[in-house]
Amino acid sequence: MEKSALIHKSDSIYSFPLNENEIELRLLTKKDDDILKVELMYNDKYKFHEKVYLKEIYKKYSDAVYDYYIEIVKLKDLRFAYVFKITTQDYKEYYFSESGITTQYDITKGFYDFFQVSYINELDLVQKSSLIQNRVFYQIFVDRFYKSEDNKNSRINIPWGAPVTQHSLAGGNLKGICQKINYLKDLGIDALYLTPIFESDSNHKYNIKDYFTIAKDFGNEEDLKALVEEAHRNQMIIVLDGVFNHISKDNELFLDVMEKGRASTYFHWFFIHGDDLDLKSNNYERFADDLGMPRLNLNHPEVEAYIIQVCLHYVEEYDIDGLRLDVSDEIPHRFWIRLKEKILQRKKDFIFIGENWHNAHSFLNSGYEFDSIMNYSITKEVLNYVAWGNYTAFEFKNHIISNLMRYKSNVNYNMFNLLSSHDVHRFYTECKKDEDLFLLGYAFIFMHIGVPCIYYGDEIGLEGNYDPDNRRCFLWEEEQWNKRIHKKIKGLISIHKKYRINEMEYSIDVIHEMICLTRQKMGRVLKLYMNLSEKSHFIKETEIVLENQYKDNILYPKGFVIIREEKNS
Amino acid sequence: MEKSALIHKSDSIYSFPLNENEIELRLLTKKDDDILKVELMYNDKYKFHEKVYLKEIYKKYSDAVYDYYIEIVKLKDLRFAYVFKITTQDYKEYYFSESGITTQYDITKGFYDFFQVSYINELDLVQKSSLIQNRVFYQIFVDRFYKSEDNKNSRINIPWGAPVTQHSLAGGNLKGICQKINYLKDLGIDALYLTPIFESDSNHKYNIKDYFTIAKDFGNEEDLKALVEEAHRNQMIIVLDGVFNHISKDNELFLDVMEKGRASTYFHWFFIHGDDLDLKSNNYERFADDLGMPRLNLNHPEVEAYIIQVCLHYVEEYDIDGLRLDVSDEIPHRFWIRLKEKILQRKKDFIFIGENWHNAHSFLNSGYEFDSIMNYSITKEVLNYVAWGNYTAFEFKNHIISNLMRYKSNVNYNMFNLLSSHDVHRFYTECKKDEDLFLLGYAFIFMHIGVPCIYYGDEIGLEGNYDPDNRRCFLWEEEQWNKRIHKKIKGLISIHKKYRINEMEYSIDVIHEMICLTRQKMGRVLKLYMNLSEKSHFIKETEIVLENQYKDNILYPKGFVIIREEKNS
Repeated sequence: MEKSALIHKSDSIYSFPLNENEIELRLLTKKDDDILKVELMYNDKYKFHEKVYLKEIYKKYSDAVYDYYIEIVKLKDLRFAYVFKITTQDYKEYYFSESGITTQYDITKGFYDFFQVSYINELDLVQKSSLIQNRVFYQIFVDRFYKSEDNKNSRINIPWGAPVTQHSLAGGNLKGICQKINYLKDLGIDALYLTPIFESDSNHKYNIKDYFTIAKDFGNEEDLKALVEEAHRNQMIIVLDGVFNHISKDNELFLDVMEKGRASTYFHWFFIHGDDLDLKSNNYERFADDLGMPRLNLNHPEVEAYIIQVCLHYVEEYDIDGLRLDVSDEIPHRFWIRLKEKILQRKKDFIFIGENWHNAHSFLNSGYEFDSIMNYSITKEVLNYVAWGNYTAFEFKNHIISNLMRYKSNVNYNMFNLLSSHDVHRFYTECKKDEDLFLLGYAFIFMHIGVPCIYYGDEIGLEGNYDPDNRRCFLWEEEQWNKRIHKKIKGLISIHKKYRINEMEYSIDVIHEMICLTRQKMGRVLKLYMNLSEKSHFIKETEIVLENQYKDNILYPKGFVIIREEKNS
Repeated sequence: MEKSALIHKSDSIYSFPLNENEIELRLLTKKDDDILKVELMYNDKYKFHEKVYLKEIYKKYSDAVYDYYIEIVKLKDLRFAYVFKITTQDYKEYYFSESGITTQYDITKGFYDFFQVSYINELDLVQKSSLIQNRVFYQIFVDRFYKSEDNKNSRINIPWGAPVTQHSLAGGNLKGICQKINYLKDLGIDALYLTPIFESDSNHKYNIKDYFTIAKDFGNEEDLKALVEEAHRNQMIIVLDGVFNHISKDNELFLDVMEKGRASTYFHWFFIHGDDLDLKSNNYERFADDLGMPRLNLNHPEVEAYIIQVCLHYVEEYDIDGLRLDVSDEIPHRFWIRLKEKILQRKKDFIFIGENWHNAHSFLNSGYEFDSIMNYSITKEVLNYVAWGNYTAFEFKNHIISNLMRYKSNVNYNMFNLLSSHDVHRFYTECKKDEDLFLLGYAFIFMHIGVPCIYYGDEIGLEGNYDPDNRRCFLWEEEQWNKRIHKKIKGLISIHKKYRINEMEYSIDVIHEMICLTRQKMGRVLKLYMNLSEKSHFIKETEIVLENQYKDNILYPKGFVIIREEKNS
């Protein structure tokens, strides 16, 4: 047995409550190690020193390096103590506690080193966001989705559909989105995420000039109110883009510092090295290396209060349902804890989605910061397997499992799973316009644990390389659409919603070099086969009962979604 | 190379800031693996995709299963990206990123999976508590320390020094402590931790009847004020015991529920299963299984507000300096986050010490909850090595390293290191009254990273088995003292303070079956040798320069503290 591979820790991703009386325990061991049996030695915390019970637990997942023994335990007394007992194939016995790995374990001294669930406190429960379960998101880059016919904005500098540059303003606006709610509803969308809509000179508006004004390019206060109302009337939620890491250099807060230097009230609102703002030596911190985007110092209580006020304004005045949080990993945890607390006091059903490209355990696993992140790790795995051909099916499966094991289970159900966005190449382009690969990638994120998102235009086969090309205008003439893509994406949305896939049990395996992802519940079985090997594989028809209404939608050359309804269940 | 042993994660105990521009990185590998070289491949986050630098990093610690490669990096740009490059002895190269272990690494796609320090935000810095660095704590069980001569409390039921039961009241009081400040000062103590002093019928007062009244057995408001003032005048800080997990069944909050059932305003302040409090079926949650101690529901906002008010009262009215938090692991994290926030708004220099017997990473590593815990894990390691003879020197060293590696470095400097308390057998008794072992254990916690604590009476050789025996009356007649113990403990305190040991570099090794713990700084070297093997070992005199004033204090048969002052430094 490889001792260095044994990983477990109390009150962590390895040991956490799922609800008010169930806990999930995860023990990591080296993959395919010579382990005969893993048992949980347990009792209520205050009785452990007198007596323990034994229960065998089983391997549920594997990735490239670990096996994951996972057990869900229902507790009576919410104070629970346990130690792992591991028997190897040569019948040696080991005990794994906070003291490490030992060959004997004295339960009478267990209070010093057993693992424990010290208590399940309601406030500390990390939960599935009921607001977004079973929804399908749609991300809109506002300037490029739909331009309402009355939009006479003189700043518009390209005709709709013309090639875009980083300075193009095409005229998409809030009213335009409102007018296309029916299109979205017909597609099956019930959650919108809009890129920023606060006053800003740019087309993307990630450099905000005024947090309290709706971008004039996009409309006005009434337009936003109307849009939220129309969305709500159609059972859609609306998530705005919260850009708090930095502002525009033309924001009056920054202009004041530029003018007055250290004498400005706002001097400490930024990170300025020296006494005066010196634009020549660029002595202020900024987003990436963008001189136009000075970073806000959210460590400062006034800045914190100001941004919280901004957020509450949009919650209270416009009744928005969530925030996607730009560059969220560079902002203090403290700020996120306070922001969430303040917003939830006003509106209970609200969703916080971080823009964290990396392992975001420290923002997600306490439950006090984000509910979700833009899950670019999954984007990357799908790119590697489906688009780039870098992974075998085994490698893909292993990476998917590693990703799931980063977070507490309930967090995985909140994940904002995406393949395209304004910050990456469009997935269709990554697939080199191979429709089957493209659809297979989308089928995966619709079948996987989490909440899928479609980037506007992906559903009609819009192409696009990196910024600005990934921000082309939506094509509203249907003859310009890829109809097959549109129909099948719509089919995937429909399946996702009809079966409430996030409520079904999940498993992922490799069968004959194919990925087989299964969701099942009460005799209903949905399977996604992904076959990217050179070989073609035959799936016995007798195993397949295709629902007629979806038959056409779900059969891909390189993969299948199979729906089986068993009789006796 | 054992891949399953490679452990690292961003924003965790493996990667964290030490101050405003330095980070510590820890990479775990399998102990004594076939690794030739570990390098950090790094650059500023937003430049990583263009170019990376390479820097070799080195093994600093080992425990029973892991080697720890540790590097402290000074950052210019506070957004830092890195990947580990590992070369094995057969010259194979591996890369370790968030994507796992690969044989190649494409930096142009690094943004998806490099490790990162996303930013060092001041608010998120986990810091050494400047309030307690270089202090020595003294824990007082109030009823048994000193009874002021004017204490005529009629509830006193034993003569001072008589054998104690769980119901003895001996008469120790606040005024008594105040009168003995000189004794403590002479000993070298500058931090007091008192067991609970709020109104309660018991002698220990862990079942509180009224949070806002000073226990009549111990004195009154004036006595506490006088004690805090006297302590402060003598540069001592005072830490009270915060018992918020449960109250006394005779507390009026609980009595109200007993009387009115669900109609009571306080019904939801407790965890009651059913509509009425039923003392026969014991349908309420309690501390351990103690029917006299119903648990408070700190998930409830009113209870949270009430207890925060209690704490602020003692901060504002009495100017206390800290709280030791009873049964802290069963209380919501949310409560601790809010409590710390509220108290620090009133008093910046304040210390929060959790009573967490287990790995308390989730309470310590965010910095938003506790600064420190009662470090019972260290107690247990010293017991195993020094008192119980269960460990070899190697095993002891390995466990000490594992313990240090549980937490971010700054947290280790705040650890409340103890060998005895009101909740465990006295260390002297655990050592079967072997003075040399006893002193060696104390020498260890005075030389180790953290803040040492002496449980009242340990310094005079007081004995005691488990509760109530570990709560005997202090002996004030010096002829009853173990003078050798007293003198040497005083010497250890004196060395600890003179050399400001917590500011010196730390290392721990095994040399000829002896533990050699070294602290050094600027040419000053302090070494603790611990020899518990059967063999006697000769340490070359030429290596030793004993400072005359301490010579007598520090030479033990089973170990030595050696102080060397090098000339050229």
